[in-house]
Amino acid sequence: MAVKMARRMAGLRASEIREILKLTQRPEVISFAGGLPAAETFPAEDLAGVTARVLSEDGPRALQYSPTEGFPPLRQAIADRMNTKLGTAVESSEILITSGSQQGLDFTGKILLDPGDVVLCESPTYLGAINAFKAYEPRFVEIETDDDGMVVSDLERRLTEIPNARFIYVIPDFQNPSGNTWSLERRQGVMDLARRFEIPVIEDSPYAEVRFEGQSVPPLKSLEGNEWVVFLGTFSKVFCPGLRLGWLSAAPELFQKYVFVKQAADLHTSTLGQMQLAGYLETYGLDRNIQGVINLYRTRRDVMLRAMEEEFPAGISWTRPEGGMFLWVTLPENLNAREILELCLVEDVAFVPGGAFFPNGGHENTLRMNYSTSSKERIEEGVKRMAKVLRSALE
Amino acid sequence: MAVKMARRMAGLRASEIREILKLTQRPEVISFAGGLPAAETFPAEDLAGVTARVLSEDGPRALQYSPTEGFPPLRQAIADRMNTKLGTAVESSEILITSGSQQGLDFTGKILLDPGDVVLCESPTYLGAINAFKAYEPRFVEIETDDDGMVVSDLERRLTEIPNARFIYVIPDFQNPSGNTWSLERRQGVMDLARRFEIPVIEDSPYAEVRFEGQSVPPLKSLEGNEWVVFLGTFSKVFCPGLRLGWLSAAPELFQKYVFVKQAADLHTSTLGQMQLAGYLETYGLDRNIQGVINLYRTRRDVMLRAMEEEFPAGISWTRPEGGMFLWVTLPENLNAREILELCLVEDVAFVPGGAFFPNGGHENTLRMNYSTSSKERIEEGVKRMAKVLRSALE
Repeated sequence: MAVKMARRMAGLRASEIREILKLTQRPEVISFAGGLPAAETFPAEDLAGVTARVLSEDGPRALQYSPTEGFPPLRQAIADRMNTKLGTAVESSEILITSGSQQGLDFTGKILLDPGDVVLCESPTYLGAINAFKAYEPRFVEIETDDDGMVVSDLERRLTEIPNARFIYVIPDFQNPSGNTWSLERRQGVMDLARRFEIPVIEDSPYAEVRFEGQSVPPLKSLEGNEWVVFLGTFSKVFCPGLRLGWLSAAPELFQKYVFVKQAADLHTSTLGQMQLAGYLETYGLDRNIQGVINLYRTRRDVMLRAMEEEFPAGISWTRPEGGMFLWVTLPENLNAREILELCLVEDVAFVPGGAFFPNGGHENTLRMNYSTSSKERIEEGVKRMAKVLRSALE
Repeated sequence: MAVKMARRMAGLRASEIREILKLTQRPEVISFAGGLPAAETFPAEDLAGVTARVLSEDGPRALQYSPTEGFPPLRQAIADRMNTKLGTAVESSEILITSGSQQGLDFTGKILLDPGDVVLCESPTYLGAINAFKAYEPRFVEIETDDDGMVVSDLERRLTEIPNARFIYVIPDFQNPSGNTWSLERRQGVMDLARRFEIPVIEDSPYAEVRFEGQSVPPLKSLEGNEWVVFLGTFSKVFCPGLRLGWLSAAPELFQKYVFVKQAADLHTSTLGQMQLAGYLETYGLDRNIQGVINLYRTRRDVMLRAMEEEFPAGISWTRPEGGMFLWVTLPENLNAREILELCLVEDVAFVPGGAFFPNGGHENTLRMNYSTSSKERIEEGVKRMAKVLRSALE
C-alpha cells in the first residue's frame, strides 16, 4: 500500500518533544522536558458544580451545534478581560474561540502562507508554531533575538530584503523556550515596522498573566498599529489545557477569514466546553486561580534556579524568567545537548534539546527546562543528576 | 489595510447553508434548511452525572493535556463498537479521536491534496466536505450517481482517465443531501476499483446507525480491500454534536499522517469531553439513545412524506430515505430552487437549494429538506406553505 501524499507531508514530523516525552513516561524519570501546567492548580471541583448547572439549566443548547465564532457570552467575557487586564480595546465581535491557541497557529498558516513564503520569527521560537506553519511549506527566517526581544534593526533589514515575508510571529512574554520578555521599546519598534511594511504580527501570548514579579509590559495588541496584530490567547496555562479552549483577536478583514477557515476545519469548538468556561468565569473569575498558579510556579522557579546555581559547573549560563514555565540553558559550544540528554536519560532526568526550537537548525549547545510540573524535591534531585552529567561531560 | 492572503483563500466562502440559516433565525420561520439533530434526544441529565463522576474521580487527568491519538478507553470502545455493529475488524490503535468528523475531512485534504489534484465524489455530495477540501485547491470530478450509489462504470472511466485522482469521497448511508443508501453491489464495485487503482476511499458515515427500517448494508470499511478505506465516524447524530467528538479509522501508514496533522492542528481533542463520552458509553451505551433518535426521526419523516404526497403539485419528485435526516427534491427543470427559496422565505418556510451540493454547479432545480428538527405540526404547516409557493410557481 503506497498512498500518494501531498507534498506538504514530506516536511511534517512528529514533534520532537512528544517523542522525548514518550521516553520520560517511566515514573522514575524526573522530567523537565514537558510543558504541562501543574494539575494541582486545576479547579476540578468548582468546574463540576458549574457543569451541573449548565447541563440542568441549558442542556439542549449546551449539547447542540453552535456558531463558528463562539459562544457569545464567552466572547464578551474574553474581550472585557483583555481590555481590563491587557489594556487592549477589542470588541467581542473580533474574538474567535479556537480549540487551543495551537489552532490559531494552524489557521494563521492556512490563511497567510503559500509555499515558499517567508515567516519571520524569533530565534529560538516555539516548536509547536514551527510545526503548525510547516504544513503550509514556508521558509523560516530567524530574526536576531536577545534578552530584550527581537532586534529591530535586523527585522528591518529582513523586511527590506524579503518581498514575500507574510507575517512576523512573536511570543513577547516569558517566551517558550527562552523565558525572556520583550522590552517596551522593542515592542514599539516592531509595531512601527509592521505598520510601515504593512505586515501582520502574530502575537502568541499564553503566559503573560503568569508573572511572578516585576512590571507587566503592554502587549503589541495594545500599541499603536494594533490592527496589524493577531492576538492568540489560551486558557491552558491559567485555567486548564484539557478543555482545549483558546481564542484569537483580529481586525475585521482577517477575522472573517479565520471564521471561514474554522468553519471548514471543525465547524466550532465544543459548545459545552465554552459554556463551562463562561459559567466558571462568571462565577469565580480567573484571578484567584492565576494567583495560585503564580505562587506555585514562582516557588518552583526559585528552587530550580537555586539548585542550578549550587550544582551546575562553571561555563554554563541560563535565563532567569520573571514568569511563565520555562528557562533556557546555554552550554559551552563544544557540548551537544542531544548527547547530554542521552546521558541524562540513563540518570533518569530529562529536558528538551534546544536545537528543535531553531527552524533552520544549529544551536545544539542549548536546552529548555520546565519548572511548572515537578515538586521541590524532584526539581532539586533532577538538577543534581543533570549537574553530575554536565560535570563529567565537561571534563 | 490590505493583507496578502494565501492563494487558497480565494476559493473559500462562508458556507451557503450557514448564510441561509441566518435568514431562518426568526422563530416564525419553519426551517427545513438546517441539519441539526433534535435536541430533545440529547441525554443532558445522564451526562451531568457522568461528568460529576469523571471530575471527582479523575479531575486532574481530565483537565490536563492528553495524547494526540485520543483517550485510550474511548478509542477501545469505538473499535469494539465498530466491530460489533458494523462488522469491521479495526484495532483501537487505528482509531484517532477528532473534533467532529468535519475535522477528519479537513485533515484528509491536508494529507492527500496538492493544488490541482482531483477529488472524485458523488453527485450531489456533502457541502461541508466540499468546503473542507477546497482549502487545498483541488478539482472536483463528480461521478455519476443514482439511487443505488456511485455508478461503478463511470468511476472506472474516470480513474482510467485522471492520473492525479487522489481519493474517492463517499457517504454510502442515508447520504447528505440525497438520503440515498448504496447497494452492496455498488460498494463492492467501488472497493474493487480502489484496490485495482490503489486509491484511498474516504467513507463518511454519520448516519448509518440511524436506520428506521430495512436491512443494514455493510460499510466499505468491512469489505475486501478495506485497508484503502479511511472511515469517518461521529457522535453528533447518535449522541450530541455540541461536544464535537468524532473519530477516524485508517490503516497504519495513513493513520500516522493523520496523527502528525492533528498534533500540528490542535494537539488533541478535549480530554474532558473524551472522558465524558467514554464514561457515558461505559454506563449507558448508545443503543437506547439511538433507538430514541430512530423513533423520533421515523415519525417525522413519515409526517413529511405524507404531507408532501398530499400537498405537493404533480411534476415534483423526491427520495424516500430509510434513515438519516434528509430527503432530496427534484423540481421540474424550468424551476430554480434559489428563486423558490426567496418566495418561501416570504411565507416563513425554508430549505437548502440543491445547487450548493454540486461542486461544479448546475442542478438548480433541486433542494434538500431536513425532517429531524421540526415538530409534526410545523412539518405539516411548512410543507403546506412550500406547496403553495410551488403550485403558484408551476402555473
